Amino acid sequence: MAERTSSRRIVIVGGGAAGIGAAGAARGTDRDAEITVYTEYEDAAYSPCGIPYVHGGEIPDFARLFLGTKEQYADAGIDIRYRTPVRAIDPRGRNVRVGDGPPVPYDALVIATGWDYGRPDVPGADLAGIYYMKNIREAMRWHEVLEEVRSAVVLEAGPLGMEMVTALCHRGIETHLVDPGPWALSMATDPDIVAPVEESWREMGAWLHFNTKLEAIRGDGNGQVRAVATTDGEIPCDLVVVCTHKEPRTDLGAAAGLAVGSAGGFAVDETMATSVPGIWASGDCAEIPHGVSNVPIQGLSGSHAYAQGKVAGVNAAGGRRAYQPVYVPWAMVAGTWMIGGVSFSETLATALGIPFVTGQAQGISRARYYPDVKPVMVKLLAEPDRLRLIGAQMVGGEGIKERADFLAMAVRTGITLRDLATMENVYSPPIGALNEPIALAAQDALARLGS
Amino acid sequence: MAERTSSRRIVIVGGGAAGIGAAGAARGTDRDAEITVYTEYEDAAYSPCGIPYVHGGEIPDFARLFLGTKEQYADAGIDIRYRTPVRAIDPRGRNVRVGDGPPVPYDALVIATGWDYGRPDVPGADLAGIYYMKNIREAMRWHEVLEEVRSAVVLEAGPLGMEMVTALCHRGIETHLVDPGPWALSMATDPDIVAPVEESWREMGAWLHFNTKLEAIRGDGNGQVRAVATTDGEIPCDLVVVCTHKEPRTDLGAAAGLAVGSAGGFAVDETMATSVPGIWASGDCAEIPHGVSNVPIQGLSGSHAYAQGKVAGVNAAGGRRAYQPVYVPWAMVAGTWMIGGVSFSETLATALGIPFVTGQAQGISRARYYPDVKPVMVKLLAEPDRLRLIGAQMVGGEGIKERADFLAMAVRTGITLRDLATMENVYSPPIGALNEPIALAAQDALARLGS
Repeated sequence: MAERTSSRRIVIVGGGAAGIGAAGAARGTDRDAEITVYTEYEDAAYSPCGIPYVHGGEIPDFARLFLGTKEQYADAGIDIRYRTPVRAIDPRGRNVRVGDGPPVPYDALVIATGWDYGRPDVPGADLAGIYYMKNIREAMRWHEVLEEVRSAVVLEAGPLGMEMVTALCHRGIETHLVDPGPWALSMATDPDIVAPVEESWREMGAWLHFNTKLEAIRGDGNGQVRAVATTDGEIPCDLVVVCTHKEPRTDLGAAAGLAVGSAGGFAVDETMATSVPGIWASGDCAEIPHGVSNVPIQGLSGSHAYAQGKVAGVNAAGGRRAYQPVYVPWAMVAGTWMIGGVSFSETLATALGIPFVTGQAQGISRARYYPDVKPVMVKLLAEPDRLRLIGAQMVGGEGIKERADFLAMAVRTGITLRDLATMENVYSPPIGALNEPIALAAQDALARLGS
Repeated sequence: MAERTSSRRIVIVGGGAAGIGAAGAARGTDRDAEITVYTEYEDAAYSPCGIPYVHGGEIPDFARLFLGTKEQYADAGIDIRYRTPVRAIDPRGRNVRVGDGPPVPYDALVIATGWDYGRPDVPGADLAGIYYMKNIREAMRWHEVLEEVRSAVVLEAGPLGMEMVTALCHRGIETHLVDPGPWALSMATDPDIVAPVEESWREMGAWLHFNTKLEAIRGDGNGQVRAVATTDGEIPCDLVVVCTHKEPRTDLGAAAGLAVGSAGGFAVDETMATSVPGIWASGDCAEIPHGVSNVPIQGLSGSHAYAQGKVAGVNAAGGRRAYQPVYVPWAMVAGTWMIGGVSFSETLATALGIPFVTGQAQGISRARYYPDVKPVMVKLLAEPDRLRLIGAQMVGGEGIKERADFLAMAVRTGITLRDLATMENVYSPPIGALNEPIALAAQDALARLGS
């Protein structure tokens, strides 16, 4: 309605990491832009990644998960419209429909609508007691429910499922993990790397049901979950935590004609521009090429969403920034371990027909005589000919995140096993061992090659 | 005396990390070689790097510092001759003189004679109560002395001095650090990076005397240290811990005609071969080119000595292995912090006339709301034109060693600020923050450059 023709009107759909990243970067690029963020939720800019740790008791309250107050965003000139879903996008008219109001015009639109869980397609999926962890207000409500839960089933051992198994065990809830795969996070890991994690879950009291399909969720007379039926038999439970694959939320954009790619997310170029002029997409609703295979992938981390959002925001505001292909370093605390990696596991490379050589080593995190020294197992995968790194997996007691970041850059920049075999490393008894585990794994690979 | 003409006779002078590394690698390269290690000490293959942590109380006893038993070396076919100094080397006759015995012939000789502290050239340097920390048996004796010490002076804030200030404070000893430089480890650090460490030492009760020269060590009537005289006045003390620069021990090799380089260590090629055929050198008695400046340097870590020893051992045994130029990642616990870096600081680059651009950031080690989240400050230096990394410094609460290893490889392989500014990073609340501090520092550098 207002005639503010002189300033750029940037509309952002979604208030998660990608949307908030886009808003901040757009503001940094164009001080005069009119920036509006629409979110269907009553909050924006909190960290959903912290929710499992509140449930597990490591973080004392949900309040800590908020990044900023609503006033801070307003002060920064970012107008966030809460509980305001966008109903439709008109790319020709360059406007969006919000509620029953008149069309809201935009000069640039960023779609950051995120993802939803794959819903279990089984009888009983509408019972009470099925928890889709995502929204913080709902998480607060479920946190109270957890007080009464004696037995829970976690569906699928993706990253969130692994965090939730660990969290529920911490709380002393009898926890069952049900996963159709052969081991935890089997798309990204090999069984030898994940074995210590699984062993520690069992020691914490968890029951692991791999190669197991969910067949139904069964309720009591009040419509409340009482068990799940699986190919491994019936498992009594008070709660089902759904941690299935992230499915990109593309309905709004697809209806407006945005191209969707092979991984199910919006197809974007390196500026995060979609197939439709004036519209960018970022975060879990978009897909990004993998740097080694060039295959589009989606469902990455909050850090990726935030970084993609910033790129989209800069470009939407008239700047120019490119996003790189991804190599996907990942790591987490699972059971009593840290586990992590980069790009391809042996299992995945084999499944995709990607040739590789490998080496691995069991190293340590500090001098072997220093208190609290921890094991650090490293497995490396490399191209057979040029020996450039194409993947890594690690499990250990400390320093896994930093090594995963390093090895992601190593994959991206073409660092070889020979480089890693001769890497220098810090040796200081409280913080680093004489031999760096990454170097030992690279040396093992070269030894297997006889070179 | 024995006529074992068919097997290669490898003699190694020195039983530290370089000598033991050489012996093991030689054995791995030539299963039939006759390998003899001579050491003047009664032990070999322990970790002197652990001594400060026994003194500080973190490690409960000295026994843990030994790497293997004497039997294990014998079983591996490595003949270690303890308390047996080598008196002379005859490169023409290819033999060494040991004690009063006949010449001991060699086919290949590895010199790994290590280093000595620069001795303070002041009156009173021969008093009792002056501790040169190096040999483990002497350390055991000094450990008992420490029980009675109330006040100590640590001479020079190199890496060992920094560890000892921290250790003595842990023990509750009144500790004074005397250093002629303007701040701790001033050859490798900038004052802003080391400031939190110095502040934490003061909080632990240490007294820091920078820009201060030692003038004399003063004794009581019994020839026992009672004070040091400095340009900052007299400091009463019961003990002086000498942590001056490592001076390479080259007398034995130099007398045999081995060339000594500009840093005072044996000049070696990439195979660790000295200027004299049939003789290799490794560890702190040798000097190695710095990868960025190509200037020879010496006095590196036990990890470097061990890796160099392995290269010398392989080559001495008829194999072929090259050692790389060094970029020198370093890190340590100092005060209540971890501090570390790679190659050049701003101070050093400026002193050497090396041009650079810089960026820095104060990041965090975990999600900002996760318990025990720690600050991580990163400063990066890069070439002004190509933006390739040439140095880094960090101070923080965790993950410093792993980041230093990463950044050393980044310097070696020509990774740029643009690469680091767009690096992917693990984001997982207990182990990694949304924004990696290294990426933030690189982004800061690019922002300063307006690019």
